[in-house]
Amino acid sequence: MERESTSRRRTHRRRKAQPSAAGTRRPDYTHLHHPFAPAAVFDPDAVARLHDAALQILEDFGIRVLLPEARNIFVQAGARIDDDMVRIGRDIVAAALASAPRRITIRAANAERNQIYEAGALLFAPGGGCPNASDADRGRRPGTLRDLRETLKLVQSFDVLHVLGPTVEPQDVPAPLRHYAQIRAQLTLADKPLSIFARGRAQVAECLEMVQIGLDLSDEAFAGAAWATSVINSNSPRVLDAPMAEGLIDFARAGQLAIMTPFCLAGAMAPVTVAGALALQHAECLAGITLSQLARPGAPVSYGGFASNVDMRSGAPAFGTPEHVKMQIGSGQLARHVGLPWRAGVGAASNAPDMQSATETGMGLWGALMGNATLTLHAAGWLEGGLTFSYEKFVNDIEALQMIAELGTPTHAGTDEIALDAIGGVVPSGHFFDAPHTMARYQQAFYQPLLADLRSHGAWTEAGGRGSADRATDVWKARLADFEPPIGAAAADARLAPYIEARTRAGGAPPAD
Amino acid sequence: MERESTSRRRTHRRRKAQPSAAGTRRPDYTHLHHPFAPAAVFDPDAVARLHDAALQILEDFGIRVLLPEARNIFVQAGARIDDDMVRIGRDIVAAALASAPRRITIRAANAERNQIYEAGALLFAPGGGCPNASDADRGRRPGTLRDLRETLKLVQSFDVLHVLGPTVEPQDVPAPLRHYAQIRAQLTLADKPLSIFARGRAQVAECLEMVQIGLDLSDEAFAGAAWATSVINSNSPRVLDAPMAEGLIDFARAGQLAIMTPFCLAGAMAPVTVAGALALQHAECLAGITLSQLARPGAPVSYGGFASNVDMRSGAPAFGTPEHVKMQIGSGQLARHVGLPWRAGVGAASNAPDMQSATETGMGLWGALMGNATLTLHAAGWLEGGLTFSYEKFVNDIEALQMIAELGTPTHAGTDEIALDAIGGVVPSGHFFDAPHTMARYQQAFYQPLLADLRSHGAWTEAGGRGSADRATDVWKARLADFEPPIGAAAADARLAPYIEARTRAGGAPPAD
Repeated sequence: MERESTSRRRTHRRRKAQPSAAGTRRPDYTHLHHPFAPAAVFDPDAVARLHDAALQILEDFGIRVLLPEARNIFVQAGARIDDDMVRIGRDIVAAALASAPRRITIRAANAERNQIYEAGALLFAPGGGCPNASDADRGRRPGTLRDLRETLKLVQSFDVLHVLGPTVEPQDVPAPLRHYAQIRAQLTLADKPLSIFARGRAQVAECLEMVQIGLDLSDEAFAGAAWATSVINSNSPRVLDAPMAEGLIDFARAGQLAIMTPFCLAGAMAPVTVAGALALQHAECLAGITLSQLARPGAPVSYGGFASNVDMRSGAPAFGTPEHVKMQIGSGQLARHVGLPWRAGVGAASNAPDMQSATETGMGLWGALMGNATLTLHAAGWLEGGLTFSYEKFVNDIEALQMIAELGTPTHAGTDEIALDAIGGVVPSGHFFDAPHTMARYQQAFYQPLLADLRSHGAWTEAGGRGSADRATDVWKARLADFEPPIGAAAADARLAPYIEARTRAGGAPPAD
Repeated sequence: MERESTSRRRTHRRRKAQPSAAGTRRPDYTHLHHPFAPAAVFDPDAVARLHDAALQILEDFGIRVLLPEARNIFVQAGARIDDDMVRIGRDIVAAALASAPRRITIRAANAERNQIYEAGALLFAPGGGCPNASDADRGRRPGTLRDLRETLKLVQSFDVLHVLGPTVEPQDVPAPLRHYAQIRAQLTLADKPLSIFARGRAQVAECLEMVQIGLDLSDEAFAGAAWATSVINSNSPRVLDAPMAEGLIDFARAGQLAIMTPFCLAGAMAPVTVAGALALQHAECLAGITLSQLARPGAPVSYGGFASNVDMRSGAPAFGTPEHVKMQIGSGQLARHVGLPWRAGVGAASNAPDMQSATETGMGLWGALMGNATLTLHAAGWLEGGLTFSYEKFVNDIEALQMIAELGTPTHAGTDEIALDAIGGVVPSGHFFDAPHTMARYQQAFYQPLLADLRSHGAWTEAGGRGSADRATDVWKARLADFEPPIGAAAADARLAPYIEARTRAGGAPPAD
């Protein structure tokens, strides 16, 4: 069977006229929407049972809240307190879910990069929080400011990444000054919605100030929209620690977007079952969302899930597994059950930019699509379960994201596209390479690969036989070489510099932890 | 944002009690069903327009049929003939679609491997028809009988591959004898449904005889079920050549499954638009299905699509592209429009078992899922657009297929799985590693990777820092070392040997081409 490999050889004819620069395809990946309806792993009754189980966890077992201010907020809403254990009645949760917004505008220095954060939107953010960086030339090393800046340049240069992230942890910057470097890098190298670590009240306040200064916003303009995002992780199981509780409160009061994300690894910090891990995730999510809404009703907050499983032989986290995909789909069902947009996570446990890494991230990416996640984090560059940001993996992930983005474009089937005239005009066994229908469209017809090498084995071998990781090195180097800071970057830096200098002279602000 | 990489580190605790062999998870991937509802790229009106366009192509433009017998069959049904151009009225097509079966039992030497070929079923077959083979030890070489046999052993050893394929072309076997080697290898190394190349009447007749002899079937038993499959490729655009037409006729008359598959590369052998390529594919598919049904109404036949696009710079075929995925989804819509199960194809254009190859195959695989293909061919091992069967790529593809298979398992959310007791029984900030709920389930809870290495970077580096392609070499070698022929293989070989010896002495049967 299959003569495909034979007939395919007929197609290797080089087009004489190379596409001119003017004809180059310039797709716009800035605003994306989900191409597929959400899938389900649970029937509606099971979703209701999971929601009820989460409410029971909050009512009966409670959640430890390590910030006295947060406990007070819960108490004032009617929650029961026993030492630092907070038991939250379902009526309190219901009120919070009623006030949480379904639609949040997140704004950027460049208004064209504003996003509507709601169900159906499809946003991607890069791998974040990586203590190490790696690339083919320099190997794996503890992250530096240079790595942070380079990776943010790469993030900025691809429109398919919609929200910035704290890609690499700049370990060469002292901890009390690190947040200055992180926010300055974002504001001077990129013009997309920002991200802030919730590492304690002092740092968060300064970060929000820097955002306002960098973007040159009035108090009203800053408070009136979400310019910054922060991921809030509960400490599963059932702990909301002080910096995270502060983050929820401070982001709510500042009108900035908190993304409440338990990190429930089934079998480790969560039950070994998909349903059990999601029940715990859902409970912790609801607790955080409730705190946000109690701090300020209507404050921008997102449901979040980054549940996967561990390898039960070693306890190591796994990503892109069937259980991860199922939990993404289930998370989407739970988020829709409470009516909120949600954030997913993908990533790779692999230690190298190899097939394993691509398969892991690819599976997770499709899980996020099947779960209709509004925002998918760690969508590019994550290796080692987030311990390393790989430049080469980043490039391959961007290719996958761009292909996903293309799936959202309409597939027209009018007279022009069905092309009966063209089909009738090509003789049997002929070809369509130079048919007028083809010539009028070929420059725009197909996704043009960023990394994929489609040459024949002979041509590829002659050119050095370099695999995709090697070629990815060329791609990111070219991007960095071509990088130009966005409009307004120099002015933003000039506004920020005196602030940062003054704070640095004062010793900075230590992170809570 | 995101402390995930911190909290994840907590999970690296090695389980003291290693799972015993008795506790090893033994999933069953033998019979799979689609986990997701089909997606759509066209609205129902567009699907109807595409179907109508295909009927117009067959009625007005016609299809060249190079086999006089097939033209006679069409003429007797009322088609118009002009030289070898056959114009087929829509009433003829409609009658064929009415008689084509919706549900086909395909049988195997091992009855447990029988499959129901219908919408909703999820079957995979390996990469097929590759003129070359490659692995890390022996490099890339023209395919040999040894390669064919080795790859069939690998195919047999993974239950997630449901139908055999002509993995590697054994170029060291003379062409008139090659079909003996191909069928003998399948019948003596595997016990799954078989595949046969339609390389002319003489070879097909002998292949079918060998199947009957090898499986020790009476004439009635053989004729009463589909024991063998054959992919029939039209020669796009609009040609059905003699061996393919013979294959359709002979398979129909023998009651064996013909899988009618145009190979429409948009921009090359088909229009540059997704809709145009599918209109042509649909027309050619309908022509082939019609010939099958005219040869014998009710004969087992499958709709098939393997449409992708070419790189418009070089003319090289591309796989796993957004257009490929769209065409898979659209093919599924067209197959459902005519009520038939359908066959998809995935593959990689990459020249190496690298990230590109994994991303290409992964995208295509999800496209086949979104299109609800009943059978997905080339699902494991294809590189270079099918010019090479890569042993290492095969292993990574199997991992992806097994993970897809796991997605079809039910995700229970009863009291036991929601695990409220377990959640209440673990203290906040505690862990579930040794919770009774975990201990009772951990050995069966999660997919256990075939290839993925989940070790920490340090442990991985100490162990040699081998990427997934290197480790894949270990996996296939271990599989080959452990291989045991299926029950009945020796007896089948004993039955086949005299037949093959006699035919070989007589010079074999030359392939038509």
